[in-house]
Amino acid sequence: MNIVITGGAGFLGRRLAETLLARGVLGGTDGRPQTITRLTLVDVVSSTGLDDPRVRQITGDIAERKLLEQAIDAQTTSIFHLAAVVSGQAEADFDLGMRVNLDASRHLLDVCRLLGHRPRVVFTSSVAVYGGALPATVPDDLALTPQTSYGTQKAIAELLLNDYTRRGFVDGRALRLPTISVRPGRPNAAASSFASGIIREPLNGEPAICPVSPETRMWLLSPRTAIECFIAAHDIDGARLGSNRMINLPGLSISVRDMVAALERVAGKDVAARVRWEPDPRIAPMVATWPGELAASRARELGFPRDSDFDDIIRRYIEESGVLQAR
Amino acid sequence: MNIVITGGAGFLGRRLAETLLARGVLGGTDGRPQTITRLTLVDVVSSTGLDDPRVRQITGDIAERKLLEQAIDAQTTSIFHLAAVVSGQAEADFDLGMRVNLDASRHLLDVCRLLGHRPRVVFTSSVAVYGGALPATVPDDLALTPQTSYGTQKAIAELLLNDYTRRGFVDGRALRLPTISVRPGRPNAAASSFASGIIREPLNGEPAICPVSPETRMWLLSPRTAIECFIAAHDIDGARLGSNRMINLPGLSISVRDMVAALERVAGKDVAARVRWEPDPRIAPMVATWPGELAASRARELGFPRDSDFDDIIRRYIEESGVLQAR
Repeated sequence: MNIVITGGAGFLGRRLAETLLARGVLGGTDGRPQTITRLTLVDVVSSTGLDDPRVRQITGDIAERKLLEQAIDAQTTSIFHLAAVVSGQAEADFDLGMRVNLDASRHLLDVCRLLGHRPRVVFTSSVAVYGGALPATVPDDLALTPQTSYGTQKAIAELLLNDYTRRGFVDGRALRLPTISVRPGRPNAAASSFASGIIREPLNGEPAICPVSPETRMWLLSPRTAIECFIAAHDIDGARLGSNRMINLPGLSISVRDMVAALERVAGKDVAARVRWEPDPRIAPMVATWPGELAASRARELGFPRDSDFDDIIRRYIEESGVLQAR
Repeated sequence: MNIVITGGAGFLGRRLAETLLARGVLGGTDGRPQTITRLTLVDVVSSTGLDDPRVRQITGDIAERKLLEQAIDAQTTSIFHLAAVVSGQAEADFDLGMRVNLDASRHLLDVCRLLGHRPRVVFTSSVAVYGGALPATVPDDLALTPQTSYGTQKAIAELLLNDYTRRGFVDGRALRLPTISVRPGRPNAAASSFASGIIREPLNGEPAICPVSPETRMWLLSPRTAIECFIAAHDIDGARLGSNRMINLPGLSISVRDMVAALERVAGKDVAARVRWEPDPRIAPMVATWPGELAASRARELGFPRDSDFDDIIRRYIEESGVLQAR
């Protein structure tokens, strides 16, 4: 089986690739585990250090249909569609967001449709599909009122995925991801970038600016649990999902103040003191429109993996990144 | 001011054009009534018998951006975007539906965006954006789970309209139309076509087949009230709508059995007896996924026009069409 990961050079794409290569198997279209013979990563750049004969890397503009036709071939049974322009960037460059978050998703679904064998498509959507005046806990059946172009484009791609699934063109699953924390590496253009930065930078001995108020409630998911959710979503029987393929993944609801308090508990007062509170008028209003907590009832019923608490997420990040040993 | 009506040769587009020409004015972008100097109708065919020097007709494929660039010029301050491929047709021909219901809507918004003066765009969406297991009365904030490609395409166009409005490219209003009844003329490819046919055909002395069960609950709006709603939606101050531009229009909730009972009350037993009940497996399941009643709380608060009862709708149809006099 050929598995395709778009955004394969990104943090989550790369981590998913490594996890799949280590597992060696993934559920086939009949539900039984199949041996992974090829893993195709599609991105604007190639991922370095992935020396595995099963890996094929294709680089280019994902909004070009030809690139997707090259990546998604007759042997492709599973696609993880992670490629996206992040929230801050899609807000700053409307046309780029439409191209990558909407046009590329539609091309991908159309290329899958032409295969004729109904591949499984796991699409990473976002809680940014919600927005505006929200209840304290967002139920699964609340109307989508995105307040960003990013959230709009994700909501549209979800609707397409659902209809392509209903028509039997693909077997889709759209996962609304909480904010991923703690991401390793450097800050990015996502408005949510600080949700990793305020943990990662202090652990690296660097100052970090928190651009939102301490009371801001975040809905978080660790990278490890996110990858587990992608695979769980892929392997679940489509019949259990029925005609609605949108799934709010279960996250942790925690205020930014409590995130920093957790950092203090795990890494000490000096580390936590490196966080400076400076509300940013470009970021705070955007983050304020995202939900701080979702019921995620359906995902819980379906038994999706969950994080236990944020202290544990920080401890795992320290362990995986080796950050404290390195200093 | 130049007003553009897409789908201008269709039943509602034509009726809207006649109403606007008779009024002679429409709210400008500053809210004050402006004299209508030009009315541009865009459709695949031209509308006959509209002899008015203010009328310009443009025919062609609305999914061709050039056609929209020709219609929507620098003097255009208001667009009524009614053009669509109906539900049954969008289900039968997926690509045609995507092209007309999605691509054309996006092109239209992009052409409006280039104008730079934020024209008002009234877009006719549909209750087909809802679907599946629905509460008896659908609240305004229920998630959209369309079960048809038509409903999916309308939901996507709504999301685009909302984001283009938020970004200041247009000043949009998306109206979720109940099923329009009683339409004059002949049956069309809409799955809802029967909702007019079971009244219109018997009044014409012809038999009519009802393809859904008598218990099926319909959410209806008369043509006259629909046109009043289009103009009310256009003229309302955008500030009153805020960031959410989707409006469930208030309809009448009535079972198909009660529709026929109303026909009997208004036109007699012999007329109502011309309805034959023959459930159609292609139509009944599609109609069953549509909501039978919506709260439409927001539209009621905003004071949108409403129909009083279905007997009155039938009487008005008889009066306007002159059907009983003609026989």
